[in-house]
Amino acid sequence: MAKRGRRRGGGHAANVVRHSASAIMQMDWRIPYNIDEPTEPLDEEGVHRIHSAGLEVMEDIGIEFLNDEALAIFRKAGCRVEGTNVRLDRHFVMEMIARSPSEFTITPRNPARKVIVGGRHMLFGNVSSPPNTYDMDNGKQVGTRHWFRNFMKLTQYFNCIHLACGYPVEPVDIHPSIRHLECLYDKLTLCDKVVHAYSLGSERVEDVIEMVRLAGGLSDAEFDRSPRLYTNINSTSPLKHDRPMIDGAMRLARRGQAVFVSPFTLAGAMAPVTIPGAVVLSLAEGLAAIALLQYISPGAPCVFGTFTSNVDLRSGAPAFGTPEYVRATQIAGQMCRYYGLPLRASNACAANVPDGQAMWESVNSLWSAVQGGVNVVYHSAGWLEGGLIASPEKFLMDCEVLQQFQRYLDRTIVNTDAGGLAVDAIREVGPRGHYFGATHTKERYTTAFYEPFLSDWQNFEAFENSGGMWTARRANDLYKKILAEYEPPPFDSECHERLRDFVERRKRQGGAPTDF
Amino acid sequence: MAKRGRRRGGGHAANVVRHSASAIMQMDWRIPYNIDEPTEPLDEEGVHRIHSAGLEVMEDIGIEFLNDEALAIFRKAGCRVEGTNVRLDRHFVMEMIARSPSEFTITPRNPARKVIVGGRHMLFGNVSSPPNTYDMDNGKQVGTRHWFRNFMKLTQYFNCIHLACGYPVEPVDIHPSIRHLECLYDKLTLCDKVVHAYSLGSERVEDVIEMVRLAGGLSDAEFDRSPRLYTNINSTSPLKHDRPMIDGAMRLARRGQAVFVSPFTLAGAMAPVTIPGAVVLSLAEGLAAIALLQYISPGAPCVFGTFTSNVDLRSGAPAFGTPEYVRATQIAGQMCRYYGLPLRASNACAANVPDGQAMWESVNSLWSAVQGGVNVVYHSAGWLEGGLIASPEKFLMDCEVLQQFQRYLDRTIVNTDAGGLAVDAIREVGPRGHYFGATHTKERYTTAFYEPFLSDWQNFEAFENSGGMWTARRANDLYKKILAEYEPPPFDSECHERLRDFVERRKRQGGAPTDF
Repeated sequence: MAKRGRRRGGGHAANVVRHSASAIMQMDWRIPYNIDEPTEPLDEEGVHRIHSAGLEVMEDIGIEFLNDEALAIFRKAGCRVEGTNVRLDRHFVMEMIARSPSEFTITPRNPARKVIVGGRHMLFGNVSSPPNTYDMDNGKQVGTRHWFRNFMKLTQYFNCIHLACGYPVEPVDIHPSIRHLECLYDKLTLCDKVVHAYSLGSERVEDVIEMVRLAGGLSDAEFDRSPRLYTNINSTSPLKHDRPMIDGAMRLARRGQAVFVSPFTLAGAMAPVTIPGAVVLSLAEGLAAIALLQYISPGAPCVFGTFTSNVDLRSGAPAFGTPEYVRATQIAGQMCRYYGLPLRASNACAANVPDGQAMWESVNSLWSAVQGGVNVVYHSAGWLEGGLIASPEKFLMDCEVLQQFQRYLDRTIVNTDAGGLAVDAIREVGPRGHYFGATHTKERYTTAFYEPFLSDWQNFEAFENSGGMWTARRANDLYKKILAEYEPPPFDSECHERLRDFVERRKRQGGAPTDF
Repeated sequence: MAKRGRRRGGGHAANVVRHSASAIMQMDWRIPYNIDEPTEPLDEEGVHRIHSAGLEVMEDIGIEFLNDEALAIFRKAGCRVEGTNVRLDRHFVMEMIARSPSEFTITPRNPARKVIVGGRHMLFGNVSSPPNTYDMDNGKQVGTRHWFRNFMKLTQYFNCIHLACGYPVEPVDIHPSIRHLECLYDKLTLCDKVVHAYSLGSERVEDVIEMVRLAGGLSDAEFDRSPRLYTNINSTSPLKHDRPMIDGAMRLARRGQAVFVSPFTLAGAMAPVTIPGAVVLSLAEGLAAIALLQYISPGAPCVFGTFTSNVDLRSGAPAFGTPEYVRATQIAGQMCRYYGLPLRASNACAANVPDGQAMWESVNSLWSAVQGGVNVVYHSAGWLEGGLIASPEKFLMDCEVLQQFQRYLDRTIVNTDAGGLAVDAIREVGPRGHYFGATHTKERYTTAFYEPFLSDWQNFEAFENSGGMWTARRANDLYKKILAEYEPPPFDSECHERLRDFVERRKRQGGAPTDF
């Protein structure tokens, strides 16, 4: 609750910092470290069976690559190429996958926002790519630059968000030829966190690479030395990689930049109706692409993305955060640990509005990320309608939950030293006192518990007296206060100028072709 | 969605049965079996440290028992009793706890609703004991028999609910002297699942024991042979057990009935501000009571209940489903496995209305139950406002989520046999087809995926066209349809008559004293 947050000032909350003039108190920026052992539904035999099945798909059935350059490379590498079908020998695949690092960093223009991808680290990125917005004042609307910028401000504002993933909403009021220029300009000026390049045509990818390099004040050599941005590509399941996605992935890999490969495998639609089967297909598609990238750029930083869920078999509607989705994510985690690859998943839901269903689906998705040992959680904040809507209310509701997950992973909660066990405090308070005033409590007053910015823990009468606002309504109120207070991060003026010049020049040149 | 559920009839859904004339399709009755390895935040050393601290509290600080009979028993057992303070030697405690079974059954009047408590089994019970109701038509109201009966009907209706726990709402329009008679009569006639006796005075407990015996058509000897009901007692933290609770617990234990001992330890209020410390206090209180019960009735079926959460340190308001709550439940699970005791927890939240916050807090609580290896989840459906409100909308929203958890624990989802791996299907469909029409899909059409009764997976436009109802509104619509269709379970007429006669006789006698 905003009002309460303001009243509370003075730093009493656990792991919370007070921004100057801020609408809320929020947790510090941190790279969460997953201290939990993963939940593993498969035994060793099950992992081996999925692994073998994936190899069989790559070897016997083959993957389609609708990209001539990739086909030529596969041919050169000794793979069996027939038309667009590529069959990858299991030894080749495993040799290539072994080259992929299990952990790497990405450094944005502000080095303090560097992130670690892989190991036990967890990163959270904003919602990406919905064509529409939904907010409680306006309902569903087609995406605009105005909303794009609002979401980028929220992305920058919340410390629990580490990555500015794809466009938080597609700004269809910007012409597609220059959209990437305007959008990346907005992203790089409104935000100083890691950004992403869509692999939607070589010109766009090259423009974005150049913009990230200029924003960071880097020479080409400096840029190529370590990851500064990433792209995320989806296969066209079943069994297919399209031209522009693979083109972009290869461009980034060759420059030492990060590539996430995320097959979108809805069980029962473009993937088998069984969850292990959908994961097999997903792995075959993903590993084939990663093998290609490792062949052309050994050691290129790659991430496998799981996007396996199920559909409603009667309507074909996608579902997310379901029991099947949770198991798919956990299994993908087992397989990625087997391969030594970082894993990406999502905070996904099918709900249309920021209500109870939205939150049970999202929280299930987020738990599966923790349980699956997921390293990067896409769409962490703001996603609705299976990814067709970005919502500011949902963005805040998700951030409240993300903060709780980040606090959950704080090992201090389970510290069993003498202070943690508190036997002396139990003795001091005895059977007739209470702990509010105990020394043991006072010593831990500012750090003991997670403190929410949106949850309302008042009793019903106080809740009613303060307006009786349901969660989404409170979020609606609060996101506007946050936007009103937003301040852009510092940006080196020379870098900013070079970036602006580049954008202006490319716009004058007409941007990128739109007929790909 | 009710409408969609109705249209869908014909048994296409996974693990779903169609009731005659039912508003929804729901999953069959089942006793879920937790196939996941628990999440364990503590290492062996941490478990040992909490164990030792708990013993130290019992041995050096002692627990207050405000019950003369219990004090006499402890004295006889060789414990050091000073006034109401009892110090329990660690060897005595461990010897007594070792007598407690790690698994047992409770059989209600309908033997088909027998439940297994302990091991890897999970049971879910309805909301218990709120003094108020909240529904979207009437807002918050003081509890009535009308609403008590409505909740009992929902408890009976949903197969995912195994236990009729305490009163789902306190019916304050029934005089306290006869409330237990009227309430248990309603429970035993409207529902055929396991019921519970409040330990609020010996007459009440004895009445309820007798009613459960009569409803089951059992002789005293038959009744005493195995658990037929249970009680749940709370300590008065810190370090205290009150007279009536201990009295009721001993009465049930002596008749071989089940006792749940659930210290209510809010960290920072009646328990230490650290989570391990609050668990230490909780264990000391709980184990001391279980030791007493095992001394008077060796092998009595006992359950340890964790009710450790945190408060808002500024307002003192309790919070649930928080990061600290989740860790407390996981730690309690580790300790209960160490002691070989079944564990009870809750589906708790602090939210006042059935909104997004209610669901993120509840879903966190439920995940902690799965991760903690919890055996009995109290308040599984319908709880709001930290237990001060029972809500029919929340009841349905929770049941939707409970069904998903029960489906999640179904091992078939992760089956990696040849059919599960689906390589033949991947070959059949190839790179250009889809899986809707594949043989592999058709063979699994009715069982592949969880099918919801309340979630709306339509796209936004279809959602808007069907009324644009947020989840709580859909639940409001649907619970009325369910109540309209409710039919009481069969009840042997002789048993029913004996039960009715008993209730009438005891009411004529004035019921139970109300001045305890």
